[in-house]
Amino acid sequence: MFKVPEHQVAGHQAKNGVLGPLIDDSGNFYKPLQNDERGSKEVAFYTSLSSDPRVPDNIRRYFPIFRGTKVINASDGSGLHPHLVLEDVVSNYSNPSVMDIKIGSRTWDPHASEAYIEKCLKKDRESSSLPLGFRISGLKLVTSKDASIWQPSKKFLQNLAANDTKLVLSRFVSSNVASNDTTHPDCSFGSKVFGGPSGILEQLLELKKWFEVQTIYHFYSCSVLMVYERESLMNGSSSGAVVKLVDFAHVVDAEGVIDHNFLGGLCSLIKFISDVLEAPAENCIYNNNCSEDEH
Amino acid sequence: MFKVPEHQVAGHQAKNGVLGPLIDDSGNFYKPLQNDERGSKEVAFYTSLSSDPRVPDNIRRYFPIFRGTKVINASDGSGLHPHLVLEDVVSNYSNPSVMDIKIGSRTWDPHASEAYIEKCLKKDRESSSLPLGFRISGLKLVTSKDASIWQPSKKFLQNLAANDTKLVLSRFVSSNVASNDTTHPDCSFGSKVFGGPSGILEQLLELKKWFEVQTIYHFYSCSVLMVYERESLMNGSSSGAVVKLVDFAHVVDAEGVIDHNFLGGLCSLIKFISDVLEAPAENCIYNNNCSEDEH
Repeated sequence: MFKVPEHQVAGHQAKNGVLGPLIDDSGNFYKPLQNDERGSKEVAFYTSLSSDPRVPDNIRRYFPIFRGTKVINASDGSGLHPHLVLEDVVSNYSNPSVMDIKIGSRTWDPHASEAYIEKCLKKDRESSSLPLGFRISGLKLVTSKDASIWQPSKKFLQNLAANDTKLVLSRFVSSNVASNDTTHPDCSFGSKVFGGPSGILEQLLELKKWFEVQTIYHFYSCSVLMVYERESLMNGSSSGAVVKLVDFAHVVDAEGVIDHNFLGGLCSLIKFISDVLEAPAENCIYNNNCSEDEH
Repeated sequence: MFKVPEHQVAGHQAKNGVLGPLIDDSGNFYKPLQNDERGSKEVAFYTSLSSDPRVPDNIRRYFPIFRGTKVINASDGSGLHPHLVLEDVVSNYSNPSVMDIKIGSRTWDPHASEAYIEKCLKKDRESSSLPLGFRISGLKLVTSKDASIWQPSKKFLQNLAANDTKLVLSRFVSSNVASNDTTHPDCSFGSKVFGGPSGILEQLLELKKWFEVQTIYHFYSCSVLMVYERESLMNGSSSGAVVKLVDFAHVVDAEGVIDHNFLGGLCSLIKFISDVLEAPAENCIYNNNCSEDEH
């Protein structure tokens, strides 16, 4: 009945005896609750989000639907374990292309423990988070012809410079990425995935408007998930491009201030995506001295 | 010929043998060049700003006019010293009210030295910078009736919480602040100073638009200066409310990325000022346990 999600690109994966999320055939995503306060924080966030009248309806659709918690058998064989039950946001796609982008130059809450702050600050400084205001945590591109996959390693993605980030975003919406070469990405799906009235850019801009005024939550270490289906595009259908926010184990009360850390990173991502729409990456040589892995 | 500026509210002041800025009667502001790389960085910034065609004309007016460098006698009596020659942005005001707000939750450039980063990070965490995305570095309010002054100490200002910040911003545009009590600020000048088509909010929004797209500079530890004249308002004239950006000793190349750190802080300040315009501070009790000094 429970399966390991095929399209997860970041976070703990329920493989090789590791505790990770599971899905079922009814479109549910079961996320194991972490034993420390992160688990209870994420439940508290989803509970609050579901009931807080200050969250506008047009914004709710950017979050996975929350269906409570459930005790099921853990993926690591350790027996029964409580899980969050969420909407599986990719259950309606046959071969989704997915990118997970952790937003914010700072992934730590000022009230966190010194040890945690130190760990996060080190990661933020060693990754793209500090320079770019976000980092690509994972991506999976299912090419349309033969469903072959481009899934660069975490190591390759973690400290991309600006040009390389633009290149990866360009490749994410290009048709000529079957082989792992440095061919000029054609961005042939850019206008339909990133652009258009219901494309990813418009969705990010709608989120931005909310973040300019909302003083309910601060979202540390939260990700923007971008999903679309290349096959549909090839068949002349809609790309099904959606933006979802995920991972709320480090959400805290806003204490009367907007989430300037998330908003700054979101604006940076928006600028990158606008740039790719206006002019695809010109430079096709990765500068991060990290060879790209294929899976 | 040279005088100590009366209306400086933050930074080194040219008093008691300290090296600080000087002004003259022709509207010039002489800022001593720091001997380390900060001095040369600020000159490089002003030189670049003056000549870079990518900076739009409507944005240039937010920076003091740059008139080169000049060697003059230093304020500390140490003899000749090179100074930046800038427009004295308050020279046309008789009794300007001034607020200096350091923008950004992070005042350090990722490429700075470890020692400098550590020092700044500590300050950012101990001040309002981290929670609010900005900190009020100084303010001086000249009340209209008898030109008495409200100038809270640096210590009082440095770690204001959200409610206290709203209260200080409210008092900045209120008529009933002659005494240092906790009277409900009336915000009677709010609509004319913060609001209106040429008010401070509109100016900040124009800057925000630029920061959403500019990938020329990253402004670390730079301040927004808000200036207006209460006397003019009392006489039914314009408030002369202006926004200026100052202090560019830590400006670095943007390397293809927007200044998400500055932009986030700017958006946070914009939200505070919008809130004050919509509803003046309701809470008149400072929560930071720091008694307020008057000068």
